[in-house]
Amino acid sequence: METLEAIGKRASLKTHLSARQVEQEKITKILDAARLAPSARNRQPWRFIVVKDKDVIETLASKAFSEANLVMREAPVIIVACADPSDAVFDVGLAVENMILAATDLGLVTHLMGGLDGDELKNILAIPREVRFVIATPLAYPAEGSYEEAAQERLSQRTRKDLQELVYSNAWGRPF
Amino acid sequence: METLEAIGKRASLKTHLSARQVEQEKITKILDAARLAPSARNRQPWRFIVVKDKDVIETLASKAFSEANLVMREAPVIIVACADPSDAVFDVGLAVENMILAATDLGLVTHLMGGLDGDELKNILAIPREVRFVIATPLAYPAEGSYEEAAQERLSQRTRKDLQELVYSNAWGRPF
Repeated sequence: METLEAIGKRASLKTHLSARQVEQEKITKILDAARLAPSARNRQPWRFIVVKDKDVIETLASKAFSEANLVMREAPVIIVACADPSDAVFDVGLAVENMILAATDLGLVTHLMGGLDGDELKNILAIPREVRFVIATPLAYPAEGSYEEAAQERLSQRTRKDLQELVYSNAWGRPF
Repeated sequence: METLEAIGKRASLKTHLSARQVEQEKITKILDAARLAPSARNRQPWRFIVVKDKDVIETLASKAFSEANLVMREAPVIIVACADPSDAVFDVGLAVENMILAATDLGLVTHLMGGLDGDELKNILAIPREVRFVIATPLAYPAEGSYEEAAQERLSQRTRKDLQELVYSNAWGRPF
């Protein structure tokens, strides 16, 4: 898929996820894409936990997911992104965007989850105290039949600020 | 360009930048790509300042760039990314990765600059106190003739940790 198409098609869809297994080869490609992001002084502060064990996913869902995110327990894979050192959250953002674009390119769906209980999640996954939990996402094939329509609807309802609200010229506040 | 190709080809190259103007249409496409990133509660906390004024670039270079980054004063455009609210640095990372991948796709070069004096930069660009300066990058065409070889060399020398060092299975510390 073309780069700009992947950027445009990426959508956070937590419903319409298939329980179908995701091939290990695809998971590796996606993590490889994350790995190629730039980082300050090439520190590569991103760390990932790939959760495929059904019991662990169930524990995460029941103890750490918000109510609204419970539906994502059906996903075959949950990927958890961390920052080590913990202040390198910007660089982890660069890597995570590569990851979710690569997933889109490979026909998979992601949904960066807000409202997670990070302390519970760190306990469950034995993440060291000094490492920061940043974000988690399911990685799943779209449910056959219902996904395309849902994605279309989602993208057509996408609300984004105009560039004029986000971009200035030469100094803060000067119109672009 | 294919998504995975853009992710693989993106390289931080501060030398071999052409002074040739970048078309406004391309700048807009790149910022549009940034705008399509996801964000927590769709806050869209990214703000960008597109600096094309030669005097402003010169002031930034002489007062805020590190010695090693001075060469980037030759770029026709400097894009500055900020976070508002200031704690939304992860989301700005997602948007900035879209931006630099779109630039790669459009044949342009970027280089996320470390070692900038953020306070000086905020003064020069009149960025409000409560807004966080996150990163700056030149946006430029590659210098004709010399770029390809430099990029090849850069990519061949790229050092990245192995996936085994970055990825765990089901819990922290368990091999992927």
